[in-house]
Amino acid sequence: MKIIDGGITSPIGFKATGSHIGIKRVKKDLSLVTTDKPAICSGCFTQNIVRASHILWDEAIVKSGKRVKGLITVSGNANACTGEQGDKDNEKMAEVFAKEIGADKNEILTGATGIIGLKMPMDIIEKGIKDTVKNLSYDRESGKKSAMGIITTDKFIKEMAVQIDVGGKTITIGGMAKGSGMIHPNMATVLSYITTDLNITKELLQKALDYSIGETYNMISVDGATSTNDMALVLANGMADNKIIDSENEDFQKFKNALYKIHLKFAKDIIHDGEGSSKFMEVAVVNAKSKEDARVLAKSIVNNNLVKTALYGEDANWGRVVASMGGSGAYFNPRNLNIFFESQKGCIIMMQNGKPISFDENYASEILSEGDIKIVAELSDGEYTAKAWGCDLSYEYVRINGDYRSRS
Amino acid sequence: MKIIDGGITSPIGFKATGSHIGIKRVKKDLSLVTTDKPAICSGCFTQNIVRASHILWDEAIVKSGKRVKGLITVSGNANACTGEQGDKDNEKMAEVFAKEIGADKNEILTGATGIIGLKMPMDIIEKGIKDTVKNLSYDRESGKKSAMGIITTDKFIKEMAVQIDVGGKTITIGGMAKGSGMIHPNMATVLSYITTDLNITKELLQKALDYSIGETYNMISVDGATSTNDMALVLANGMADNKIIDSENEDFQKFKNALYKIHLKFAKDIIHDGEGSSKFMEVAVVNAKSKEDARVLAKSIVNNNLVKTALYGEDANWGRVVASMGGSGAYFNPRNLNIFFESQKGCIIMMQNGKPISFDENYASEILSEGDIKIVAELSDGEYTAKAWGCDLSYEYVRINGDYRSRS
Repeated sequence: MKIIDGGITSPIGFKATGSHIGIKRVKKDLSLVTTDKPAICSGCFTQNIVRASHILWDEAIVKSGKRVKGLITVSGNANACTGEQGDKDNEKMAEVFAKEIGADKNEILTGATGIIGLKMPMDIIEKGIKDTVKNLSYDRESGKKSAMGIITTDKFIKEMAVQIDVGGKTITIGGMAKGSGMIHPNMATVLSYITTDLNITKELLQKALDYSIGETYNMISVDGATSTNDMALVLANGMADNKIIDSENEDFQKFKNALYKIHLKFAKDIIHDGEGSSKFMEVAVVNAKSKEDARVLAKSIVNNNLVKTALYGEDANWGRVVASMGGSGAYFNPRNLNIFFESQKGCIIMMQNGKPISFDENYASEILSEGDIKIVAELSDGEYTAKAWGCDLSYEYVRINGDYRSRS
Repeated sequence: MKIIDGGITSPIGFKATGSHIGIKRVKKDLSLVTTDKPAICSGCFTQNIVRASHILWDEAIVKSGKRVKGLITVSGNANACTGEQGDKDNEKMAEVFAKEIGADKNEILTGATGIIGLKMPMDIIEKGIKDTVKNLSYDRESGKKSAMGIITTDKFIKEMAVQIDVGGKTITIGGMAKGSGMIHPNMATVLSYITTDLNITKELLQKALDYSIGETYNMISVDGATSTNDMALVLANGMADNKIIDSENEDFQKFKNALYKIHLKFAKDIIHDGEGSSKFMEVAVVNAKSKEDARVLAKSIVNNNLVKTALYGEDANWGRVVASMGGSGAYFNPRNLNIFFESQKGCIIMMQNGKPISFDENYASEILSEGDIKIVAELSDGEYTAKAWGCDLSYEYVRINGDYRSRS
């Protein structure tokens, strides 16, 4: 797998662009993507039962198996909790974009992120689409503009592109994502878009995505909240002309791994970019009885407020790690538990075989003074492992999420 | 039901005392309770699979159905994550106290709260018990001393006593509890002790306790964490000489309700006393499809960091309330959802039939400026209701739980 400088427009046949149309004050708030050849599409959608209109729309398209020609995203307005009107506005947005690029509205995927409960400014959006569509282009810069169009309070855009060889053909996979801001009154929405010129069956495309999401986005947490707007999409237009991947052969594994690498980078970028986070935490639970136990335990640690505040305070507070695991509902034998804290500065063991180990406080502080901290919970219950990623809980988090008036 | 000034020593035949024996620097750290006539005992214990030694010990006694003669609690040391040594120390503590009051060690319930992973200072504890038992007394002041002996960073002691009439006899129910501090490296431990001179079967005593805990302690959250040491006990010595309650008759309902009232007061006291909390939140979910749905929805709101920070920021952020409900996994129909915010200053509706309502920001701010806030989520899915109680997420919470060095 070769990492290249690129994004959503890197694979063959994908155009994109982004612009400021006036939903936000100044920043870009519209993102458009098209594919020259209709693409198959797979998706993962938020499990929150309160779902933005675009979630319902896109899920129906993905389920239908129809090929798609375009993807339109607005940022600044989440079009969530907006009832039937929101559904109508979402459909209208697809319709207007479809007309501009000579497609059917059902061939257009939609996305939105921003403030919940606000009616969509359809006049601005309609005009914005018409003004922006002419800038659609294959070049790198247009990909960047498109990535800027989907972010909200993200401090940086999230892009990546890689190439793999499939039966002598060079396959390109590119993507962009946004996460970050828990802004009034929304929560950290993840929008993740990936394009590829790979030729693959829809079933296997979905399978690769499901695997990837389960190991990446589903294992990160800024505040344990699920957004009403979360979505991850992959579009494959087959323009690389490789022999179609229709079985879980070596080529499929290559692609699955490349997709995972991109999603993992985006997931970590989202945590690093999390509003008000000052430290990054990776939690590894090893030797668990089952994959599910490992996952639940790892997530219970990154989600625990007491662990998160301890991380912020650079406090080697293994007691909270143990207690959060114990309260997670997952199985493990506490009497065989080892807990390690690690960073670039070194590694220190806090608990061994379920018993506290006396350790050098100064050395622990030195390890925890780093920005990237790893917590390892080593069990002896089985052979399953899971990793989760999160951040600390800081004054800044409270300020950003509590101090609404200063932001509106 | 009559509320009287009292606590753990109010019912007939219960003596108590508390003292400072040197586990903590200055505050009381030992609490003793005895009953003249051996008492039946019911208990609820933490579901955390990492469990302090006293949890294992007391659960075995409660399961055995044996009558008990005493209860000893130390504060300052949680005796958790201390392995077999912790079990031995806990047993020794029971043994020493038993010897002093002429009981068998298996007739002594134990409790501990404080720092995890520290070996118990058994020399101090043994001497402390011997010095303290002679002060055991029936009077009100001794009850207060006993309540002081179980608290850690609680700002105030939690006591209550009530009287009910059962078949012409006056029954007294008294109790004490502690909660509060998420201090290094422990989490908010709840210890709840109730004594009564009621004559009742063990099965019904447990049934009344289970009901009560499910509606009170299980519905409060300071940080969503379960302690390794949480426990609620009820001791009934039957010395009021009422005809034994052996069926779920009117007298049982009276007792069950009285027990609930005491536990509810303690639960709310614990939230009000929660370290770093500046606002109290009551969440009511009404007209849910099932009791379990109502419970899960109510708890998802009080546990949500974005709701908690919004409360701290006095931000009428209904979007976060809705999203946290949607992510809870419980069933409700979002299109029939109404959301109200209430306080002494008034009530305001934010969302009606799943659609946002434009509201007066100033009025909302005025309502949220109060210390006690109520959030009502009105569904139309059924007839079940649940309440949960929590607090905001403040700078102070982060400071207390993050800034370890300044506290050790």
